Amino acid sequence: MINHIIRVSYPAGEYPIYIGDQLLQDEELLRRHLVGTQVLVVTNHLLEHYLTSITHALRDYQCNTLMLPDGESHKTLDQWSFILDTLAMHHHHRDTTLIALGGGLVGDVTGFAAACYHRGVAFIQIPTSLLAQVDASIGGKTGINHPKGKNLIGAFHQPSAVFIDTETLKTLPDREFYAGIAEIIKVALIKDFEFFNWLEDNMHDLLARKTEVVMHAIKQACLIKRDIVGKDEKERGERILLNFGHTLGHALEQTLHFRDWLHGEAVAWGMLQATELSVKLGNLSRSQAQRIYHLIEQAQLLKKFPSDITKEQLMNAMRSDKKILANQMRFIILERIGQGKIIDKIPVEEILYSLNFSYEFFNHATTT
Amino acid sequence: MINHIIRVSYPAGEYPIYIGDQLLQDEELLRRHLVGTQVLVVTNHLLEHYLTSITHALRDYQCNTLMLPDGESHKTLDQWSFILDTLAMHHHHRDTTLIALGGGLVGDVTGFAAACYHRGVAFIQIPTSLLAQVDASIGGKTGINHPKGKNLIGAFHQPSAVFIDTETLKTLPDREFYAGIAEIIKVALIKDFEFFNWLEDNMHDLLARKTEVVMHAIKQACLIKRDIVGKDEKERGERILLNFGHTLGHALEQTLHFRDWLHGEAVAWGMLQATELSVKLGNLSRSQAQRIYHLIEQAQLLKKFPSDITKEQLMNAMRSDKKILANQMRFIILERIGQGKIIDKIPVEEILYSLNFSYEFFNHATTT
Repeated sequence: MINHIIRVSYPAGEYPIYIGDQLLQDEELLRRHLVGTQVLVVTNHLLEHYLTSITHALRDYQCNTLMLPDGESHKTLDQWSFILDTLAMHHHHRDTTLIALGGGLVGDVTGFAAACYHRGVAFIQIPTSLLAQVDASIGGKTGINHPKGKNLIGAFHQPSAVFIDTETLKTLPDREFYAGIAEIIKVALIKDFEFFNWLEDNMHDLLARKTEVVMHAIKQACLIKRDIVGKDEKERGERILLNFGHTLGHALEQTLHFRDWLHGEAVAWGMLQATELSVKLGNLSRSQAQRIYHLIEQAQLLKKFPSDITKEQLMNAMRSDKKILANQMRFIILERIGQGKIIDKIPVEEILYSLNFSYEFFNHATTT
Repeated sequence: MINHIIRVSYPAGEYPIYIGDQLLQDEELLRRHLVGTQVLVVTNHLLEHYLTSITHALRDYQCNTLMLPDGESHKTLDQWSFILDTLAMHHHHRDTTLIALGGGLVGDVTGFAAACYHRGVAFIQIPTSLLAQVDASIGGKTGINHPKGKNLIGAFHQPSAVFIDTETLKTLPDREFYAGIAEIIKVALIKDFEFFNWLEDNMHDLLARKTEVVMHAIKQACLIKRDIVGKDEKERGERILLNFGHTLGHALEQTLHFRDWLHGEAVAWGMLQATELSVKLGNLSRSQAQRIYHLIEQAQLLKKFPSDITKEQLMNAMRSDKKILANQMRFIILERIGQGKIIDKIPVEEILYSLNFSYEFFNHATTT
């Protein structure tokens, strides 16, 4: 059943986000978004149950399937190339449709393959993790990692539809669910004070995965993201705000070679650092910062910092980040809760200060 | 000195094509089109002389250079990946500018790397072959070959400027120059009867590379291509006409593994076949077809057909062509000289007939 339909506009078109439960049982809805008679479903082994629903719904199509290994460390050129080889081997034409059934990894790699096959074919996002549902599946960012940087290679390529089926969250491990909440907190922080208040009031029920609370959180996060990416498809302006917490988050993931920490966990740590930086640069009040730290902690997002990662490694990783223009350090900070801001030319010592602060905070607050 | 400036518009912007001689000596003109302070020039060993001009002009930039091996068989994932690795290794940011100095191969691979690095960075086309000047460098088609098909992987990514310096043609081997004329004939055939007449009248001087004749032919071909791609960036409609002669041309190149025949030579053969198909399907008059065959012959574009390539191989290669939708054979034919037309669902026997015709024609007309 469809609970919400959100329409995302971009310069060359628009697409719907369907939010509901048992959406994947709706054969007609899925078929409506296919271009020709060929489909390639890309997924991973954990999702065979949903895959079966889809291949059944598409029984009269040429429907090929492909399994990718799970985890950010597999978001590579090889996996992308594997998708393209599969399409070519099965003679898929330019009117084929790719379906990405899985988490952010599957969506990003599949979307990038769709962007490049025949210079661009259609693809549908069926995100199955909370993180992918509220973030990665919307806005057309696709890509793969490079040893020198996360998402260093990719394209902007908009999906033809996004299916968010909350059913898929029921089997999601707690840790991954919490990691998804990090991105929900992020959009509240940069854009929506009221939603932040709502998150404070409802965090307990959200963590308990109460259906209507989860549904509302997803809808609200999608609406905020839709409003931002609709105005700025190619990340020239306001969309940059969505990188709040990501500069340091990416640096950490890269230094860890995309292992051990989940993306949302790394972003939570990056948000903590960026929040402290916001206080230091005179924008955010200390009391609002405390509320943010408290919410991140409540959402189970504090982890013990890996003892073998040095600050120097993180600073070096940050220097090769995509968000850096002409060697200037760029950060997203908060003026207040609900209002993010892009700042260039931040002195290195301010970054080091907030880096130290977040180190201490994470290591003191956690017991694991 | 700039002789002509042609402005190309596309939905998200526009860019200039500069046509002239000794353009590469104009430091100011080149620098005007760079985004940040980083540049990567991609070229091949034959062009070191021009490369030196460029690196001198950009002496106060971070200017890295990279040499690709020459030839269509190197238009591969490996070369593309090599460009991306080089950019990452030298810490190029998203405000970098790539410069493609070379023929179609260099332009296509470099453009595709620019399309994917940081999800899209700027690039400048400096085409040095006639073929690249009148065709590949304009319109934003970028890509690489896949064992299963030419340009099967790629993106639409518009350059920020195109520099056509006729100086670079002076050292171009005759065979490559003639191959470029094939694409000039093509645009006349699909769009401009007057230009076709002009080509008949001036072919002798064009082959002799008389400066003003070469300059006019390039300008006219660029104008026609500009008008077509300006209306249809992503090849959904009129742009498909530019594939005249390419369905069979690509099939031949692929069957030959992109060796032995130049792209323009394969296209000339494909145009001959498509012309005969146009007569057979009742559109083109026999007398106009004869004029086309004569012009192709005059342009030195007839080659003896490789004896080990069978018609079955070509038919199979055609079936995996990008221009085929839902397993229908699509061809561009001519209603008359100067007016191309897209036809779907062409019976296989008509294609075989014209294939035989072109086989015979090429093998009888040539002595080499």
